[in-house]
Amino acid sequence: MHLIAIDWGTSSLRGALLDGKGHVLEERSHPRGILTVPPGGFSALFEELFGDWMRPTGSFCLISGMAGSKQGWVEVPYCPCPSGRVEVGNAIVEIEPGRIAIVPGMSDMHDGVPDVMRGEEVQIFGAMALAGLSDGLFVLPGTHNKWVTVKRGRVTGFRTFMTGEFYALLSQHSILARTLDAQAPLDEVAFLEGVTQADNGQGLLHNAFGARTLALFDRMPAGELASYLSGLLIGEELRTQSIHAGDLVLIGSPALTQRYLLALEISGNTARTLGAEATWAGLHALAAIHLSNKARS
Amino acid sequence: MHLIAIDWGTSSLRGALLDGKGHVLEERSHPRGILTVPPGGFSALFEELFGDWMRPTGSFCLISGMAGSKQGWVEVPYCPCPSGRVEVGNAIVEIEPGRIAIVPGMSDMHDGVPDVMRGEEVQIFGAMALAGLSDGLFVLPGTHNKWVTVKRGRVTGFRTFMTGEFYALLSQHSILARTLDAQAPLDEVAFLEGVTQADNGQGLLHNAFGARTLALFDRMPAGELASYLSGLLIGEELRTQSIHAGDLVLIGSPALTQRYLLALEISGNTARTLGAEATWAGLHALAAIHLSNKARS
Repeated sequence: MHLIAIDWGTSSLRGALLDGKGHVLEERSHPRGILTVPPGGFSALFEELFGDWMRPTGSFCLISGMAGSKQGWVEVPYCPCPSGRVEVGNAIVEIEPGRIAIVPGMSDMHDGVPDVMRGEEVQIFGAMALAGLSDGLFVLPGTHNKWVTVKRGRVTGFRTFMTGEFYALLSQHSILARTLDAQAPLDEVAFLEGVTQADNGQGLLHNAFGARTLALFDRMPAGELASYLSGLLIGEELRTQSIHAGDLVLIGSPALTQRYLLALEISGNTARTLGAEATWAGLHALAAIHLSNKARS
Repeated sequence: MHLIAIDWGTSSLRGALLDGKGHVLEERSHPRGILTVPPGGFSALFEELFGDWMRPTGSFCLISGMAGSKQGWVEVPYCPCPSGRVEVGNAIVEIEPGRIAIVPGMSDMHDGVPDVMRGEEVQIFGAMALAGLSDGLFVLPGTHNKWVTVKRGRVTGFRTFMTGEFYALLSQHSILARTLDAQAPLDEVAFLEGVTQADNGQGLLHNAFGARTLALFDRMPAGELASYLSGLLIGEELRTQSIHAGDLVLIGSPALTQRYLLALEISGNTARTLGAEATWAGLHALAAIHLSNKARS
């Protein structure tokens, strides 16, 4: 039986056609995140993009990500922490019975303030399966980074950091945008200067202004300011988290995980890295739980 | 002799006609900050806005703020810390001899990263004159807040915090903008919740996301989220500064200084507050130094 695995995000979506063993037969991606879909338009868009994959009898589609949010196809309630892949698999909701189902996201709570993720939990379950891990601190960099603690195969807690979104806001819309070239390639020295500066106890609200004044005083070339700002932000994120040697797993694109590895090196830490392909392994494992539940009931 | 005192900022300018004793005879403000002035257009715009005030023989105009920056009328070099009003007064530059002069801003340096202000130093000298102070920690909230240490009448050091700009970016351009009403009036309880939350050791990159999830989980009404975010930011700013009882002076609009007073109350601190009218007293004092220097030479 074929599994159609989809990660439907806010601004884009990715899909893969998997065989019964979870091997990828074909991949597709489209700039059709949930924010581009008109109300009531999810079913028609799904048929347009993946109808051919669904044609063989018995094909089943499992979707993770923002498709299960309030602004998505059908809202699917979050699984609270602690939950493992069995609890999340048991909470999968079929939105077209026997054909299409959505994975719930996860929620956590700290001092009365909720935290949420949708899609990252699938990447983590996939990464655990691929790497044979059942414990660790998983970090997923992106627009809204997730720091996720896993113990004995279950997600016990997590926090979101708006690091990627702050970078976009500051580099494109703030006073820093006047002197900073957001497209410049990574300059490792400037990046590490930012990481170090982030630890000076003065906080991001102050340190970010340095990316302006270093340019004003010609103390840093325009081409290095973006790397410095990126270092300030990632350094600020790392500053607040206690990292124990050996248990860190980074999941994301090489361009992003490389920066975290550089920043971690300063404090003598390192991490395993995994690509976002973990999504397909995670959806395959969750689909197996869901379909075996159905077979039993 | 009349003094024309002008605070020429980035997005707006304010001017006052002062008599020989520094009393305000008339005030004007225009939405003509330096960013609205075409290259080479400062002199003509000045004549248009203030030509009538300059007509009496002997009228002298002193300008503070961004008019002395690289993007301004004429660039006037910063006075480094430590400097008092005498050093700053001595560094005033006449750009139209005998008629119009510009006050330098001030610069500081921390671990190789410069900091700058233009205009706030004038407000501080004015506040010191009005309130009879020669020591203290002066805080000037705004787009780019300044925390300025004054000892024996001299500015010994300062730091900038982009608190106001971060608030604008997050409330108008980030994911928080989807649920937050930036125009809602101050809700003191939500504001103080934000101030308290800022001290949880997790940093702004994480805490800001709470202004999203509190709305997602209906734990805070939309009308209170802006106050919560404002509290997170001001709390983050206060968290990094060591404040000693009794030496804090807030200079700014009542709407802003009120928020700092509320946040300070949590830690049992208080502050004196002064309005932005301190600008005129500062320009009057600096003009006196400059004109007496000229009379002597």
